[in-house]
Amino acid sequence: MARGTLYTISAPSGAGKTSLVNALLADGDNALCVSISHTTRTMRPGEQNGVNYHFVSREQFQSMRNAGDFLESAEVFGNLYGTSRIWVQEQLDQGMDVILEIDWQGAEQVRKLIKPVKSIFILPPSLPTLQERLTGRGQDDEATISGRMQLAKNEISHYGEADYLVINDQFDSALDDLRAIIRAARLEREQQLRNNGALLQDLLA
Amino acid sequence: MARGTLYTISAPSGAGKTSLVNALLADGDNALCVSISHTTRTMRPGEQNGVNYHFVSREQFQSMRNAGDFLESAEVFGNLYGTSRIWVQEQLDQGMDVILEIDWQGAEQVRKLIKPVKSIFILPPSLPTLQERLTGRGQDDEATISGRMQLAKNEISHYGEADYLVINDQFDSALDDLRAIIRAARLEREQQLRNNGALLQDLLA
Repeated sequence: MARGTLYTISAPSGAGKTSLVNALLADGDNALCVSISHTTRTMRPGEQNGVNYHFVSREQFQSMRNAGDFLESAEVFGNLYGTSRIWVQEQLDQGMDVILEIDWQGAEQVRKLIKPVKSIFILPPSLPTLQERLTGRGQDDEATISGRMQLAKNEISHYGEADYLVINDQFDSALDDLRAIIRAARLEREQQLRNNGALLQDLLA
Repeated sequence: MARGTLYTISAPSGAGKTSLVNALLADGDNALCVSISHTTRTMRPGEQNGVNYHFVSREQFQSMRNAGDFLESAEVFGNLYGTSRIWVQEQLDQGMDVILEIDWQGAEQVRKLIKPVKSIFILPPSLPTLQERLTGRGQDDEATISGRMQLAKNEISHYGEADYLVINDQFDSALDDLRAIIRAARLEREQQLRNNGALLQDLLA
């Protein structure tokens, strides 16, 4: 039985998900890790195999998928992405909390395969703020930005499926929100009985 | 429909419940309050009516109880204690989170009348530590201390009924645990939809 907690964190592009998750990991919490996805897309300059992604060929990916190795997988812009089921299960069994950074569809797939899952949705404080963030670098034309907004709004439309909604207005406050969710989950009775079982048993002496 | 969250906080004597709740209230969180019980016991020096307790006569208490005014009530050492149902409901309706400091039996009564309730149990890190805390002042004889330990162990034996277990080894850490539970509960989807409904609705535009 899994001892760690599995989290899915979803968000529209521009909501700050990756920065928040990176800041969370920078806390140095030894019992928290993020899953590194497998992907068939080409490695970009600065990326490292096994750090940013596990880069695999399309053939490798498909054979893994056929073997049921993925908890969830998706095709985005012609590239395949997937989350290793075995790796996640091993981490949970060792008492690690595991974060999956995936979209709402991935989160839905995961919820069907592993229980319990705590799903978190990170949202911008408003659509104008999101638009600002998505155009911040000023390098893209209107059609590109409008396409991004459409994708973002599609993702946003699924926030009602998440257990927790974090509104990223102030970064530090949103980060504290994520920390609180993880800390509180560890205090739930079943988690405490698993992680502090001896201490709790001694109290009944 | 209640918008705030109702918490019951239970603990054996000596676990630090009252100090922790007081520290939590000292944070100045405007959306958090603690219920002040009604009691028939005599006011002690330094206590204030309406601050420490609502001091009422036995007749007043019984007529309130007969009218169904109490969410829970109990007799301890010949004195009656009760939690006002109307006051708690008003606070919750105004979006306040409400803490009830009650024993496991009170928590059980409350769970039957109001849903959802989040129940928290505060525990000492060990029985020897609890014994030390209960004898700390060195003013009581062995029989008194042994009686207190027995009562404490009886309360402890019900921790398995709580949603959250907080182990008060280091005070500041236990306080952060309580803060995390309350913060995380406010991020639950239903709470966010109630408290940030307009913002969340605008994101679907």
